[in-house]
Amino acid sequence: MVLNNAVRRALSSRHLAHLVTLNRDGSPQVTVVWVGLDGDEIVCGHIHRHKKVQNIQRDARVALSMVTGGKTGELDNYLVITGRARITEGGAPELLNQLAQIYIGAGTTFIPDGAPSGYITRITAEHIHGIGPWNEQH
Amino acid sequence: MVLNNAVRRALSSRHLAHLVTLNRDGSPQVTVVWVGLDGDEIVCGHIHRHKKVQNIQRDARVALSMVTGGKTGELDNYLVITGRARITEGGAPELLNQLAQIYIGAGTTFIPDGAPSGYITRITAEHIHGIGPWNEQH
Repeated sequence: MVLNNAVRRALSSRHLAHLVTLNRDGSPQVTVVWVGLDGDEIVCGHIHRHKKVQNIQRDARVALSMVTGGKTGELDNYLVITGRARITEGGAPELLNQLAQIYIGAGTTFIPDGAPSGYITRITAEHIHGIGPWNEQH
Repeated sequence: MVLNNAVRRALSSRHLAHLVTLNRDGSPQVTVVWVGLDGDEIVCGHIHRHKKVQNIQRDARVALSMVTGGKTGELDNYLVITGRARITEGGAPELLNQLAQIYIGAGTTFIPDGAPSGYITRITAEHIHGIGPWNEQH
């Protein structure tokens, strides 16, 4: 789905994302990742073929959740995206160094030269919920 | 499993928790919840029989993830707990009002008198990972 401006802004504002994938036995696996946008895909980079990468290659169903700052009434805003992910090979050092400018600071080299080209997770959103300007119910 | 002091501290420090349950079709569901401790169980309260409550009643496998503040090197600390949950009936208004003292502020009445007695999710940790003092690997 097309991401609206409120969602795009949340995904571009240094908020850490909790990425949920499914293990082989169907149980949930979670890690915290940096995220960026590539068109309407949400992207994150991995130098190694971590368990989450293997999980997505086997089962595309993922969820991504982040606390976004701000409140609605007394409750903290948050954004949950569920959808499908695919893995592409290569480009992880470039993506991670680009995201490091946001998540660590300008001028950071997070991944040194000579690192493996790695993997990129590309998530297409199917449902968006949570508390915040993206949720008409709240 | 028994929760060590670093984990107990993280779970008691106003950090919002991303609670992952499994939908009927096996896909992941995530909401953000307040958490507390009852012995070595991690607890959260629900006034209504939300989808997450129904999910846990059908499939006990859950994950709980939170950003905890602090860094290890350049990376933000976070805590992920995977385990099994059970639902007990009643006591949700009392638990939520107790947690509101931490998450909103002292003196808060979050759930008014006369609310339904609700449900409590009780999570037993089986694995703990992430980045922080709970993770020997980092």
